[in-house]
This record gives sequence, C-alpha cells and structure tokens, in this order.
Amino acid sequence: MMARRIRLGMVGGGQGAFIGAVHRIAARLDDQYELVAGALSSDPVRAHNSAAELHIEPGRSYAGFEEMAEREAARPDGIEVVAIVTPNHMHFAPAKAFLDRDIHVICDKPLTHRLEDALTLASAVAHNGLVFALTHNYTGYPMVRQAREMVASCALGTIRVEFVTGLRCESVAAELTRFVAGRALDDNAQMLMRFSGGARGMLWSSQVAPGNENALRLRVYGEKAGLDWSQEQPNTLLFTPLGKPPQLIRRAGSGASAVAAHASRIPAGHPEGYLEAFAQIYRDVAEQISARREAREPDPASLMVPGIADGVRGMRFITAAVASSRANAAWTAIEP
Amino acid sequence: MMARRIRLGMVGGGQGAFIGAVHRIAARLDDQYELVAGALSSDPVRAHNSAAELHIEPGRSYAGFEEMAEREAARPDGIEVVAIVTPNHMHFAPAKAFLDRDIHVICDKPLTHRLEDALTLASAVAHNGLVFALTHNYTGYPMVRQAREMVASCALGTIRVEFVTGLRCESVAAELTRFVAGRALDDNAQMLMRFSGGARGMLWSSQVAPGNENALRLRVYGEKAGLDWSQEQPNTLLFTPLGKPPQLIRRAGSGASAVAAHASRIPAGHPEGYLEAFAQIYRDVAEQISARREAREPDPASLMVPGIADGVRGMRFITAAVASSRANAAWTAIEP
Amino acid sequence: MMARRIRLGMVGGGQGAFIGAVHRIAARLDDQYELVAGALSSDPVRAHNSAAELHIEPGRSYAGFEEMAEREAARPDGIEVVAIVTPNHMHFAPAKAFLDRDIHVICDKPLTHRLEDALTLASAVAHNGLVFALTHNYTGYPMVRQAREMVASCALGTIRVEFVTGLRCESVAAELTRFVAGRALDDNAQMLMRFSGGARGMLWSSQVAPGNENALRLRVYGEKAGLDWSQEQPNTLLFTPLGKPPQLIRRAGSGASAVAAHASRIPAGHPEGYLEAFAQIYRDVAEQISARREAREPDPASLMVPGIADGVRGMRFITAAVASSRANAAWTAIEP
Amino acid sequence: MMARRIRLGMVGGGQGAFIGAVHRIAARLDDQYELVAGALSSDPVRAHNSAAELHIEPGRSYAGFEEMAEREAARPDGIEVVAIVTPNHMHFAPAKAFLDRDIHVICDKPLTHRLEDALTLASAVAHNGLVFALTHNYTGYPMVRQAREMVASCALGTIRVEFVTGLRCESVAAELTRFVAGRALDDNAQMLMRFSGGARGMLWSSQVAPGNENALRLRVYGEKAGLDWSQEQPNTLLFTPLGKPPQLIRRAGSGASAVAAHASRIPAGHPEGYLEAFAQIYRDVAEQISARREAREPDPASLMVPGIADGVRGMRFITAAVASSRANAAWTAIEP
Repeated sequence: MMARRIRLGMVGGGQGAFIGAVHRIAARLDDQYELVAGALSSDPVRAHNSAAELHIEPGRSYAGFEEMAEREAARPDGIEVVAIVTPNHMHFAPAKAFLDRDIHVICDKPLTHRLEDALTLASAVAHNGLVFALTHNYTGYPMVRQAREMVASCALGTIRVEFVTGLRCESVAAELTRFVAGRALDDNAQMLMRFSGGARGMLWSSQVAPGNENALRLRVYGEKAGLDWSQEQPNTLLFTPLGKPPQLIRRAGSGASAVAAHASRIPAGHPEGYLEAFAQIYRDVAEQISARREAREPDPASLMVPGIADGVRGMRFITAAVASSRANAAWTAIEP
Repeated sequence: MMARRIRLGMVGGGQGAFIGAVHRIAARLDDQYELVAGALSSDPVRAHNSAAELHIEPGRSYAGFEEMAEREAARPDGIEVVAIVTPNHMHFAPAKAFLDRDIHVICDKPLTHRLEDALTLASAVAHNGLVFALTHNYTGYPMVRQAREMVASCALGTIRVEFVTGLRCESVAAELTRFVAGRALDDNAQMLMRFSGGARGMLWSSQVAPGNENALRLRVYGEKAGLDWSQEQPNTLLFTPLGKPPQLIRRAGSGASAVAAHASRIPAGHPEGYLEAFAQIYRDVAEQISARREAREPDPASLMVPGIADGVRGMRFITAAVASSRANAAWTAIEP
Repeated sequence: MMARRIRLGMVGGGQGAFIGAVHRIAARLDDQYELVAGALSSDPVRAHNSAAELHIEPGRSYAGFEEMAEREAARPDGIEVVAIVTPNHMHFAPAKAFLDRDIHVICDKPLTHRLEDALTLASAVAHNGLVFALTHNYTGYPMVRQAREMVASCALGTIRVEFVTGLRCESVAAELTRFVAGRALDDNAQMLMRFSGGARGMLWSSQVAPGNENALRLRVYGEKAGLDWSQEQPNTLLFTPLGKPPQLIRRAGSGASAVAAHASRIPAGHPEGYLEAFAQIYRDVAEQISARREAREPDPASLMVPGIADGVRGMRFITAAVASSRANAAWTAIEP
Repeated sequence: MMARRIRLGMVGGGQGAFIGAVHRIAARLDDQYELVAGALSSDPVRAHNSAAELHIEPGRSYAGFEEMAEREAARPDGIEVVAIVTPNHMHFAPAKAFLDRDIHVICDKPLTHRLEDALTLASAVAHNGLVFALTHNYTGYPMVRQAREMVASCALGTIRVEFVTGLRCESVAAELTRFVAGRALDDNAQMLMRFSGGARGMLWSSQVAPGNENALRLRVYGEKAGLDWSQEQPNTLLFTPLGKPPQLIRRAGSGASAVAAHASRIPAGHPEGYLEAFAQIYRDVAEQISARREAREPDPASLMVPGIADGVRGMRFITAAVASSRANAAWTAIEP
C-alpha cells in the first residue's frame, strides 16, 4: 500500500512563471507529492493569488523563503522537500536556508550563479546527508538513461569522440560570442573538449540559429558502436554497432532496457515527452525520500537523478569555459 | 481565483489496469480534478488495495458501480463526474447508471459494444443535457486540433481525398481479416470510404504489421493544400500548400494557431506526447463542467472534445464496416 | 576485356521529351550502349535536329519506326536493341515491328494501351525468344531488389499484408475517381487487393495530393518481420523483425545483400537515385544481350528486370481495376 | 545544334580505382565528353587492359602522363581536357604537365599535397588562363548551389554562425587526433573557426564515428533565417525563416531557384544523388570549355565550379589547421 504523499513546498513559481508550472505538473504526474506551502512571489498580491489558485492554505503562503523555512521546519506536518524555481541567480540563499533546516531540496538548474556558493551547498549536503536533486530534465528521458547505461556497460567499447558520458571533461577551449546587441549574456557558445582517457568532444549551444527550437542532441561514439539521441524525437535511440545495420531502439519497444522501462509510463507507440522526463526526476526523488522515511535502500534506478556533485561539476565547467573564452579560447583545465 | 477541484469518481482501473492509470494521470496533470471515489475492481481485495493506493477514503471505495452511483448521488459532496475505464464491452451499464443520476461521464472508447446501447445513451444525454466525453485521445493533440481547424476554415479548399475531417463518411467497403489463429477479433482492417461532397478515403488498421508501434497517421488533401500528421512525431504538422514549399508547423512554434496554443502547456522544442493529449480532454471537460457550475458559456475551444454524437457515429461506422466485410466488401451505407 | 558496346536505337524521345532523355542517360551511365539510330519524332525537323544533337549519323535518323525497323534489320551493323519511348498509347506498333525483325526491345511502361496488344507481344516474344524489358524503374533500386529477395527467402515468414512481393494478386476492388474536371484519365485510384495464400493489400495512387512528389512507398509485412521502402529515401530499407529493434539497412552498408551490391555503383554514404535505378535496368539488359551474343547463361542477378510477362500481368491488373471501378468497386478477379 | 563532344583524357583511374570510375560516369552522364586517351595505371598490363575496357585506342593508352601530355598536345585531334584521378599526393606533376601544354584540367580533390605546389599551379593558371576545375562534389548538388545563392542574396541576413558560405575563414583553432593506431593520417578533426565579419563556425570530420556513412551536413544561420542540408537527403534544403514555419525546399519543386534548376535533370520526386552532382561539375566545365571554343561568355551558372583559387584556399586552410593542432589548438590565421 502506498504511503501518504510527500509534503512539498515551492519557492518562486508564482503566476506567469513557466518553470514553476512545469515543476508542479512533474510533481503531480505520478501523484507522490502534495503541494502544501509556498513563497511563490516577492510581490505579496501575486503570492497570495498564486497560492489560492494552487489550493495552498493561506496560512502556508509566505512572504519570503526565510520565514517559510523557519515556520515549516517548526510544524509537525511541515514540508519534507522544497522545490526552488526562482530566477537562475537566486537559487543559493533559499537552498541554503532549507538545507540548514533539514529539508530536502529539488533545485532548478543551474545550481548557483557563483562557484563558491555551489561549494558551500555541497558542504552542507555532505554534512547533513539530505537529498539534493538538480532538475537537468534530459536526464529523465528513458532513452538518455539507456544511453548512459549502454556506455557504462561497455556496449560502445572505449569512447573516442563524445558528448555526454560518464567520462570526466578535463579541459575546454571555448569561444563565447554575443551576436545580438544588448543581450546580457553570450548567445552563442562553441567549445572543444578533452576528456579523461583521451576522448574528444565538441559542444555547440546557440540562441542565434533560426529554425531550431530546443534542439538538444547527444552523440557518443566508441570503438565498437555509436549512439545518437535528439530531444525532438525523444522516444527513439539510434544505436549503430560497427559492421551491423543501425538499430532504432524505442522506449518500451524491443531493445529497450530495464533502466528505460523504469523511466517509462506507457507502452511503445504512445509518445512520451518533456513533462514525463521532468516527472521522472520527481518520481526518483520521491523514492529517495521514501527510502529514508522507511530506513531502507532506495531503488538503485532512482539514483540516476543529478545531484549536488553534478551541480558543482557543471559550475566548474562553466567557470572554465568563461575563463577559456576570455583567454582567446586557450585550453583551460577543469578542476576535478 | 481558481474554484475548488472537480470531484471525480472512477469505474474500473484497479491495480494493473493500463488505461485507468492513464486516465488518472490525465486528470492530475492540470490539477482540476480530485479523485474521491471508485468502484475500481470486481475483485474486492483488489478494489480495496487500489483505492488505498490512490488515497481514496475506504468509505468511498465501492463494490460495484450501481452502489457507487446511488450513494455518491446521495452525498452533498458526491462526485460530479465519473470516468468509465472498464473493459470495452462493459461501458454501457455504468454510463447509463451515472447519467441517470445526473452525473457527468467521461467514457473510454469505444462508446459501447452494441449500437442500440449507444443510442440509448445518446437519448439519455439528449434528455438531461449532461457532459458526455469520449476519450479519443488523438483529438487532444494540438496539431490534430489545428489540422481540424485548418480544414474547417477552408485552408485546404474542397477536400478530395481524406481521412479525418468534418466530412460525413457516407459509405464504406471493408475487408476485415483474422490472420492470427485463435484471436477473438479481426486483426487487420482495410477500407475504402466515400464521403459527403465526393471526397474519397482509405483506412488501414492492423495488428499484424511488425515494426509499427501505434503508428496512427492522418492525411487530408484538398484542392489547395494537404496536411499530414503522425502520432509518433505529434509536435509537427506538415502543411503542403499547392505551389509552395511544404511547411513544418510545430506546436507552439511559428504557424501554430490559437486552437493549438489552447491545447499546449510548454514552449516549442519541449516535446509533448500522449499523456498531455489525454490530459487535454480532461482539461476541456473540466471547463465544460465549470461553465455549468457557473452558469456561463464554456470556452469554445473546450468543445472539440468528442461527445456522445461522435460515439454514436463511430458505432454506426463499425457496424457498417462489419456488414460490408460480411457482404464481400460491398459498399454499405452508414446511417446518418 | 569488354566487348564492343551494344548498338541501340530509339523510337520517340526527340527534343523536349522527358522520358527519352532519361532512357539515354540510363543507357550511357554504365557505357554499355552506343546510340546509333533513331526515329525520334514524327515532326521531320525535330527528328533531324534531335538526331544531330545526339551525334546520330543523318542516314540513320528515320522518319518513322517502320522504315527504321526495316533498314536497320538489313544492315550488317544494324541496331541490336531498340528503346521505345513514344507516348503511352503508341508502344504496341513499334514494339511489334522490331520484334518481328529479331531486334530486342526495351519498352517504357505501360506495356500497351489494350490488353489484346499486350498478349500479341507476349506471343511474339514467346515465339522468337528475344529480350523484352519493361522499364518499371523502381525495380532497379538496390534496396527494392533486396526487399524482393528477402521476401523470397522467407526472411519475413508468411506474408499477411502486402504490396509488392512475388505473390499473385488474385482480385481487386477498385475505386477510380476523376477530381479535376477536364482530365482525360482518373486522377485518384484506391484499391483493396487479395493475394494468393490469403495475404491482403491496399494501393493508393493519386495526382490530387498536394505536397507529395512521386511518393512511391512499398510496405510488406509477414508473420516474422516487415519491410518499408520509400523512393524519396531510396538508399535505406527499414527492416522490422518481430521482437527486435527496427534496422536501417543501407545500400552498400552493413546488412546489404549481394543482390543490392549488384545494383550499386558507389560506396555507402554517397546517395544513388532514380537515374542509377534506371541505368540498372539498362545494365541488366546489356548483360542479357551479351550472354546471347556469347551463347552463355546470363548472370542470374540480371534477370530481375521486368519482362513481357510482367507487362501482361500489369495490363490484366489495370483491366480488372477498371472493371471493378465500373462495377461499384466489386471484387474482380485478375486473370492468371 | 550540339557541337562534337569534348575530347577527354584521364591520368589514373585504372581497373579497381573507385574515383576514376566515378569521374567517367560523371563525364558520360550528360554526353558532352568522349574519353579518347589515358595513362590509366603505372602497371603496364593494367593500363592496357583498362584502356581496352574503356574503348580507348591502343595507340592512345600511355605508359605515363609525361608521354601522354607531349603526344596528345602534338595531335590535331588531341585531348582538350584531362581528368587527374591519381592518389592524393600525386596530383601536382600531371596537372602541371598538362597546363604547360595548354590543356584544361579537371583535378580530383585535394588540389595538391603541399601548399607551394598549389601556388605553382595557381601561377600557371593565372598565366595561361585555362579552365581548372576541382571536383568538390558537394558543390554540384542543386540544393547546395541554391543554399549558396540564398546566402549571397541576403535571404539569411548577416551570417552569424556558419559553415560553408562565401565568407572568408580568417582563423582556425583545430584539434586533430589519431585514435586508431597505425593510421597514417589523423582520423578525427574538430575545429573552431572565425570568419570575416564576425561570424563563427565549427567543423567536425571523423573516421571513428560508427554508424555514420559519409554524413556531410552543412548548416548556416543568419539574423533572418537558417539553412540546413545533408548529403544523405540531398534533394531537400531546410529553410528556416525567423518567425515563420520551416520550409522544405525540394530540388525541382516549389521554392527551388533557377540555380537549382540549372543543376537538375529530372522532375521533383525522382531523387538525384552523388553521381548527378559529380556530373554537374563535368557539365559546367564542358560549358566553360565550349564557350572558349566559341569565343563567347560562358553561362554564368556554370561558374559555380570550384577552381584553382578554391584549391589554394583549401590548402591554406589545411595548413593552418595542422599548425594550430601542433600548437595545442591555438588560433592560427589563414593567409588571405
């Protein structure tokens, strides 16, 4: 029999905020959370209206995250986990506040704005052992998980040219460019990467490529086979073993692994998408929290969710890329 | 401010039932329903365990749909709508029972097993004016809705060769075949169709075509343009105006209409799938029910949900197709 | 060492004629023919100019096919084979004229306008044993040939639902429609087909489907696997074995058979197209003619070219389809 | 009326040589050349047999290119143009020998092995004004030509991120890697590029990516639109104007330009491929040679063929990339 739902709070995500709404759908989809508290907006009227729309009791709609952390921690029925969906540069302070009160955290990406803040959070998590999940949504796709497992199980042999594997990116040569005048951030990034073990990689991320929507694509090649996955057709993984015809592995179809099945809800031929991948992260976090409640080991499949260490690595990568770009795309080491 | 959630009951859908779980995810996704009662299984133990898992109070987990209809109708906080997700041949009796007690119905397809039962339900709906929705899931896809709107607005000109439009199929010549010995139903259907206005169509539906998953594809051609949509890439609609390059209209991208936007949740580049289409039907039914609560007109966009008349037409179509196949694929008229 | 080129004549195909130019490119591509004579146009000026452009000696540019057949047959260096590329209803008379003078024939499709003419040609070929090839271009594609071989070798098991295999189509129910006023021929054909052994099929051919170019697609399903090929991506054959991931077999890539290799010129990754498929038919006819010259058996792979029997079957199929359509799409047997 | 065919010779390309056979098919396809002389192999037996197979008179099958250049130049009916299809490092000497005797040259890519040799050839061409064509095959594809024209005509606006345009690549940061032990050349190249005007680019070329065949893909993005073309589907150009649905421009279909039509032979829906693109280069060279014969201006559309200047630029690019890779991928200027 299923235990009661996990009590969830949210910081940010008031009316009109896109990513907050996505987090809520993701939390609802598998029915393992109950949204009971929020500091949804710094604007008091919007905060109040948003809470009412979401069926949050007025007494648990807070003016700020500090008050929310303090009062929820004091309630016997206080929240067990908080979702932080504030703007990118405002993740650190609320994350720290809830961690300090023994409340698990689901944090939208990127982890923080500054590397030192990321390290502070990592220390806090190392100290108190809480669940800390970073919602890199693509990691929830069944076929991305299967890709990762296939790389790990050596189905591809030694990796030579790669993008996203378990390998450690050791250094980066980056060219960041701002094409549209007035933008606060670079709008085009192109990088060369060197990985542990000698593999090589490239990364292109752009906001100036008309006709591309999100266009996330991952390709990994080893000495024995290759993998190709694109978010726009997320239910298919192209597997290209050397000397054999390429295979179309489909989520929940022939060739799909147990790891993919764990992250699927519906049979083959019924496409899943972005919200299901997002919900998968929430489902896995629920399993991790439930396991702690019940003092048991979590399902190993639930541990593929990106955590604090991944967030720190991401910050180190970005820091190195910015430094490289400022140094005329010189190779710049990424701290281990 | 959002009103309270709509109280939902479910008949069928106990542990292990696929389509019941899909209905529940669809109902949760947009957070407009609360599942409060159920007759989830004819097996009392499974019914009880299923209800507990779904956080339904024990007192509202019923042994049968008759008891459920009677007792829920008597409660001041009884269910407002019921989802019927029993096996295909068991839709009629519960649908009738709830309609007779003024409870709205969401019914899984097909409407009924026998045409006369469908007509009985249609009479009941005509009599009491309740909401009756049939979950033909593909009608919830934004790009299918846009396709329908483009046909209706004459973007294609007069339709010549077609599949799913607003045209009335007047007669059918069908060849139904059972290839796999021991199957209870035909596993391959091939049909020619004649539509009002002179258009022609074909339909192929098969369970003996290895490598195809669900493989639902719709194509419509008019004198000015064509449309092509496939469930396996549901976020794209191919629009082919005569004398111009084919265009890829993407959900939430350039060229997507207000009708498509109504049925979308997330921006372009983040694929939506089967569950979101299903949830769209639930969302539109919620709007229809809310409008009645509030004695106002519903949002016209919510009226694209298939209703009782569509269910009756579907039954007439199947009846004609079976008759045609028995008559050596002779053209058989479909009753208007 | 290669023997001298085969001496080729052409009837039809003067300046401005599309299909005649295609036949000439196809004949040149593998350099096994030499175009030395022609009755290229019924317009004497165009005939003369066309011949000059094609480097045909003035003395071998004829005013009509009768004169050409007579005089070429009388020369010691006369043509060995003639390509007939006149309009569709004018194939019979020249084909007959050259067959009667022991000259091999390559005839554009369809074989003839009337079934009785097709039978007359079949008698002539049966009598004198000449090579008679019908340029159904798609039969020259390597992956179509491989598809045919895979069906024949039972890689798909018993065929259930099919389109183009070695099975005999026994009867057809056809709906032919003329949508565009003033067209001489029906512009939309939709058919159900029954094959020997119980397989079923459908065919749709249309000139009123905007956005489709040639759009030839073949799908065959058996109890063990399926095949899917489309002329717009002719270098790939999708093979879908039951219970395994679908495979992309590519011309000259892994999984391509010897039959496909026979019909390929260049390595994988360099796309071949329509002209190469057409040239393959010419290459195979050259092999058949050379084998006769040299009194040896032809390479068996060269025998996949459609011949007179296929032309007759095609005429019987069309005849039955027209009769069926006139009889309200009643099932109409195709003479064996 | 068409003039006589252009007399063509060939250096290299004896039995078993792939690229020589491709050049000959390309020369034959449009029937504007006649292969009359060759130095086909350094092995005398193979040279003799190859010539016989190709219907070259024994007296014009030469033991070496020097003899061939000298004797053909002395004949009144000597070759007008030579195709050089020797191994990559052996292009310079024969190209120089024929240029010195006023014979036009079609040279397989790359131009030469060493940059100084390329410059020597450029001087010779500048001096005597002969036609010198480099068979970068992809430049013959109709849709690549249309892409180039669209960029040139500002259909994309200012280019920001790009691959192959008319822009000059000013510097490169390259990472060349040899993964497979024992290979003579690097088997993986990854580069960042800076172009005149501020555009940025990336290039990845690899022989260690299983499942990819040739996989040539070009993408160009400007401020108003983008273009995407892939050799594996060469008949389609994806055009993505900002704020409008992406368009599929098809060779010979709606939206195809006059430049594309110039490089097409057959209607839309009949796929063209690699050999037709190659033949287009030969066809354009024939036009350039014919124009000189006739002392007229060539058709401007024939001038898209890569020439000696493109060859020199290519050598400068490779030289800079190798230097960059040796300098740890430092930005390295490309000489103008």
